[in-house]
Amino acid sequence: MARALKLALKGWGHASPNPMVGALVVRDGRVIAEGFHERAGAPHAEAVALGLAGSRARGAVLYVSLEPCCHLKKRTPPCTGAVIRSGVKKAVVAMTDPNPAVSGKGVEELRGAGIDVTVGVLERQAKLLNEAYIKYIATGMPFVILKSAMSLDGKIATSSGESKWITGPAARRLVHRVRSGVDAILTAVGTVAADDPEMTARTNGGKSPARVVIDPELRSPLSSRIFKTPPATFVVTRKALPGRLESAGVKAINFEGELSLEWLLGRLGAMGIASVLIEGGPRLNAHAFEEGVVDKAMFFYAPKILGGVSFPSIAGQGAARLQDAWRLGDLTARKVGEDILITGYVLKPG
Amino acid sequence: MARALKLALKGWGHASPNPMVGALVVRDGRVIAEGFHERAGAPHAEAVALGLAGSRARGAVLYVSLEPCCHLKKRTPPCTGAVIRSGVKKAVVAMTDPNPAVSGKGVEELRGAGIDVTVGVLERQAKLLNEAYIKYIATGMPFVILKSAMSLDGKIATSSGESKWITGPAARRLVHRVRSGVDAILTAVGTVAADDPEMTARTNGGKSPARVVIDPELRSPLSSRIFKTPPATFVVTRKALPGRLESAGVKAINFEGELSLEWLLGRLGAMGIASVLIEGGPRLNAHAFEEGVVDKAMFFYAPKILGGVSFPSIAGQGAARLQDAWRLGDLTARKVGEDILITGYVLKPG
Repeated sequence: MARALKLALKGWGHASPNPMVGALVVRDGRVIAEGFHERAGAPHAEAVALGLAGSRARGAVLYVSLEPCCHLKKRTPPCTGAVIRSGVKKAVVAMTDPNPAVSGKGVEELRGAGIDVTVGVLERQAKLLNEAYIKYIATGMPFVILKSAMSLDGKIATSSGESKWITGPAARRLVHRVRSGVDAILTAVGTVAADDPEMTARTNGGKSPARVVIDPELRSPLSSRIFKTPPATFVVTRKALPGRLESAGVKAINFEGELSLEWLLGRLGAMGIASVLIEGGPRLNAHAFEEGVVDKAMFFYAPKILGGVSFPSIAGQGAARLQDAWRLGDLTARKVGEDILITGYVLKPG
Repeated sequence: MARALKLALKGWGHASPNPMVGALVVRDGRVIAEGFHERAGAPHAEAVALGLAGSRARGAVLYVSLEPCCHLKKRTPPCTGAVIRSGVKKAVVAMTDPNPAVSGKGVEELRGAGIDVTVGVLERQAKLLNEAYIKYIATGMPFVILKSAMSLDGKIATSSGESKWITGPAARRLVHRVRSGVDAILTAVGTVAADDPEMTARTNGGKSPARVVIDPELRSPLSSRIFKTPPATFVVTRKALPGRLESAGVKAINFEGELSLEWLLGRLGAMGIASVLIEGGPRLNAHAFEEGVVDKAMFFYAPKILGGVSFPSIAGQGAARLQDAWRLGDLTARKVGEDILITGYVLKPG
């Protein structure tokens, strides 16, 4: 199953909004075929592996990191049929598919056909791998990661606004890898004006996600790199886009009144965006926590102390009481180059 | 040698201003005697172990975590003589003694007496264990640890000033253990007024360090717990102490003009204080980094986000440029209960 999860990872950034899935056909303790889900629309992992195994699959064991699908609402035929026809005697499944159209029905179908099915092998790792898919398929809302790079004392820029680069090359490489795994990056006009970032995934073989810039009054300089480098950029604004941006392929997402991030994420979810990485400044970060839309935080701490009160990682009103703090669970820390990365999951109140 | 270092740790908080040292006498692969340096004025580790071994030490191997001393400027006789008289054929030493009165001369004396001496076994761990002693014996200045407990976004209190408790019980227990290992805790009037802490080491068998409160205008409430609980409290002030504090055993360290932390630490060093733990607020923390007196930072991060701009862990002017940031080396991170502890060593500029 560890091998299946590793295969699944090959779909990183390309499988979405589908899950990343890996599969192996094992006979007499030897792997005779393997496959992974390469991209949405391509054959599923178990179909690939069983196809390669052909008649040798008869009596073999199928390992697959996600429950085989049994529904027809998609571009590829359901996998349960292929599994049953292949003649495997046993299937080992890491986790059931949270898709309401599957959700255990795939396993039932296999068992009904006399196949011995084991569910839950390396389940925790399998769920971590597809944490974005799990949320998106169940709610239609994208999984939201908020990333911030700061000094040990929580500052993202010096008093004069200098922020390049607080963290080191290894941390920046990891951020490009994270970008290549999400469907969209969300930022705001302050970051575009201050840093003029490209917000692309500059990593081997990685796809660059869509960029979404919150810019209510269209104050981003038209010459900003984010408007000039592919792929698609969306501007979330109250204004009409100038022709120069429209002809450069930039698209508007219009709103009136106050912007609700919840609303915006719903719009992005409806566009098929299953995961969003927020890379903003102190105010966007504060809004995201205030609205409760963040699922996972990735905070990089550089071995530096900046001092002062300007440019904290999270601005806003701030919690008045400790019990009002936003809480995270499952904190983990690891060294990335000279920096420390702390990752945690935002706990929903109540 | 790992066992010798473990024995040395038994002197935690009591050996200072002497180093923590452990020693074993090993014969035919079996430990026949062991000892550690219990407190300043008590026999040294190797003297204890050799005393227990008696005539069985002849031809045995001595493991000791610090070079045996060879000087007479102290309360106990030099250990080199005892080692030579014991008849051990070999001595394994983790590190040479940075005390200028020893500094390799102890090893030379043993070698001159025909004893085979190996130096440098587990040297890195031995140096870490006695990092405070190493600085103090060489410079006369105490080793300074700055501890701060903050949210993931670097805040030490909510916008209303609430700070108890940001971190969890495991982190607080560890702080008490750190306190029991230093000779003094340094804080300032702001923390005393806001939190009314005792600043004692509430841990099994731990000694409580002296408390030093910076309070230039004597604004700390006379009823503060720090003045009422043992051990000694020193107030660093421009004013004369009121009789009520003097009769409670509180002592003044007077200064004029602006307070220099460098000067204050020199005074504490002259009083035999080899290590200081700074537990202050944003301003004291900023001053300590600005004056460059911090050797080691211990930052606890709770799984919380407070937001806002008030009560950062480090206040002050702040660095204008990234190259002006205070830099730390050897960052390590580990989980302490639900919190993350990041430890680093301040790099001296240039």
